[in-house]
This record gives sequence, structure tokens and C-alpha cells, in this order.
Amino acid sequence: MVEDAIHGGRPAPLALMVRATDEPGSLHTLTRVIFEHGANITYVDIAERREDSSTIYFELEEHPTVDAEVLIGDIQALSIVRSVEQAPSFAKVYGKRIIVVGGGAQVGQVVVGAVAEADRHNIRGERISVDTIPLVGEENLAAAARAVARLPRAVALVLAGAMMGGDVARAVYEVREKGIIVLSLNMPGSVTKAADLVVSDPVQCGVMAVMAVAESARFDINRQRGRHY
Amino acid sequence: MVEDAIHGGRPAPLALMVRATDEPGSLHTLTRVIFEHGANITYVDIAERREDSSTIYFELEEHPTVDAEVLIGDIQALSIVRSVEQAPSFAKVYGKRIIVVGGGAQVGQVVVGAVAEADRHNIRGERISVDTIPLVGEENLAAAARAVARLPRAVALVLAGAMMGGDVARAVYEVREKGIIVLSLNMPGSVTKAADLVVSDPVQCGVMAVMAVAESARFDINRQRGRHY
Repeated sequence: MVEDAIHGGRPAPLALMVRATDEPGSLHTLTRVIFEHGANITYVDIAERREDSSTIYFELEEHPTVDAEVLIGDIQALSIVRSVEQAPSFAKVYGKRIIVVGGGAQVGQVVVGAVAEADRHNIRGERISVDTIPLVGEENLAAAARAVARLPRAVALVLAGAMMGGDVARAVYEVREKGIIVLSLNMPGSVTKAADLVVSDPVQCGVMAVMAVAESARFDINRQRGRHY
Repeated sequence: MVEDAIHGGRPAPLALMVRATDEPGSLHTLTRVIFEHGANITYVDIAERREDSSTIYFELEEHPTVDAEVLIGDIQALSIVRSVEQAPSFAKVYGKRIIVVGGGAQVGQVVVGAVAEADRHNIRGERISVDTIPLVGEENLAAAARAVARLPRAVALVLAGAMMGGDVARAVYEVREKGIIVLSLNMPGSVTKAADLVVSDPVQCGVMAVMAVAESARFDINRQRGRHY
């Protein structure tokens, strides 16, 4: 499930950065050429927008019938296109993402643990990123939790606050349904019931979040579900 | 420049999550309907991929001639589409991103400072996220630094290590050309010459990175360029 969230167990994709005119229909024109080559787009985003142009980033599934050089030439030949470059894929550079949300004091300590542990796994060839946002208020926190399910490459969420419940807990159930692992600090509020795992110490919580998603850890979240540490 | 990196000073976009069949041509079909409505796609990504379907997330520039309800109905009517939902935009939920790369020990401390400072600005209505990856080696670090220029909503990079130079310094010059602000810890290697600003204390460096991109701070990176603290 965690691997699926990255690139579906498929081979490393062809990654292209295309600088093109920023106008309605640009993406439609680019996707026509890619479709004509029979390539499946596994990831796309618009990385940079300037006055009159934008950089669109594509990852394409590798396929024996897709000739990368001819495809790049055909994209380059479009009148809306200024440049095409090959790039390493985000999955290769930044890998899986753990998202930490909550209060500044707690988020900072969770990240100290998570980054130190991710370092140990990344040295062994994994790619684990730790992303954060400090936020106040049930509505903001619930929106941030729900958005994790649609953040590219996100696999786990850590709730790092001193009181969270209500709509935040509902958001936790929703993202768990979509395959996101959720850890919570111990705190007042219903999120501790909604989370997969509750850890009181923030540094330890960050470490365990990384262990739960790392390939090179022997930590099985299924055996820890519902536990409090 | 910093605001441009988010949504180009334009009004809040219409954000849609579309679950559709995962096959070559899906994105081309979806963008056709959007193009027929005259809407400009300002952001797109593929959030979630399952066995046979994927969730594609679009942000569309608001335009008086685009009727959101009719557009959603027309997308829903496509045979490849299973569901369409409106969602809050990532710019609204996660905002600007500061990316911290380097060694686990230093990245953790930079984030403690950055998250505490981001908390103070987010309470006043901003949205600043702090994203990290601990990495080892010139090649990995240079790739991570270069990728910042194509990460959606990324505005600043912090180099948090104990020795960085060579290709990492070249990557710093490249991303600065693309409008990314670069801060560095004080360390051996040529990145301290390449960065906009060098700060010795990691917590202070994280705080300053946030101040450099926050709307509600009176910190002007142009007046600090080339300084060492």
C-alpha cells in the first residue's frame, strides 16, 4: 500500500519538464501528444508560473512502445512549447512524505525525531521526507488532515497538538480509509481514539512515524494499531 | 515574486478532485472539457493511484465566463469519470513551502526554529509550511536542491549540513535564478558563497527563512543578501 502510493510498484518513470505558454488549452495540447505516443501519465504538476509561461512537470509510465526521444521531439515541435528537459522523478528525489500538523512547539519536536530517523533510513537507500505545517483551530487542522489524502506521495500523518477532536477526528477516519497511517501525540480530544497509534513523547512519535513507513524497519503498524505509548 | 509562486496574485482558484479511469488519454479527455469551458488550469496533480483509477486534482483560474456547476456537470458526464468533488486549494491549506535539506541533526534544529516562527505568522492568517529531507552525498543534495525549483509552492531552500560545495553550490545558483531564496548554515564548502544569506545558529536560520518569505514580517532579503550571522 505504501509502495503503491509512490509509483504503484511500476518501473521508474520518464520525467519531463516542459516550459509552455500559459493559456487555456496548453495542457490539453501537451496531453494530446503524450496520448498519441500511448504513454500513461502517472504524475503531473505545474511547478512554476511566470507572466506568460509555465513549467509543467510530467512523469510517464515506462512502456516498451514509448520512444522517449521521439516523444520529446514531438513535444518540442509544438508552437506553445519553449523547452523540454528530462529530470529525475520526485519519487526518486523526495520519496514518501510524512506530514506533521499541529502546534509549533510539538510539531518542532516531532520533526526532530522524524528527521533523525529518516536520515538513518535514507542512508540505507530509502527516500523519506518530513513535511510540516503549524496551524491553529479545528477547521484549519481538519482541512490540513483531509488534504493529506490528496498530497502526492503522502503516506502518514502525525497530529502534534495539545487538544484535537471533533471534525479533526472525522478527518482522521477519512484519510485512514484512503490508506494514510495516522499517529497522534497523547492529548485531550477524540483524535487519540481515531488514530492508528498514540505516542506521548513527541520525539519518539516522530521516530515511530518513520519506522511505520520505512521499508528498512521491522515495525508493523498492524501489530501496533490502537496502542498507546 | 514570492506571491507569484503561489497563485500569481490571481483570485482564489476553483479546486476540483476528479476520480477517473487510469489509462492513457484520461488526462487528455478531462483537459478537453476544461478547455471547452475556457478555463485556465493553474495547478494539476495526480494525488492517488489505485489499481484501475486515479484521483486528479485541478485548480482553475476563476473567470467570469466559467460556470463552475456546468463545468462540474460536464466532467461528471464523461464515461471515464467516477466522481467529482470541490476541495479547498492547496495554496489555501498549505501555502508557501520552505524546503530544508541536509544532515538529520541540523535539519531537525532548523525546523524547530522555522516551525515556531511559521506558527506565529500562520496565526495571523498566513500559510507557511516547512518541508524537509535528510540526505547524504553531493549528488543527492544537488538533486534535491535543483528539484526545489519545480516543487509546487516552494519559495525558499535552507541548506542544513556540515559541508556542502561543488555541484550543490551550482544547484544553488540555478534555483536562485528561478526565484528561490536560499539560506545556508555556516559550514565548510562553497555553498556559503552561493547562498543569499548565511546563519550560524540552526534555530535562528530556520526563523530567518520564514521571516524572508512571510508577508507579515519586516525582513527584506534584498537588504541581507551576502551577509553572515
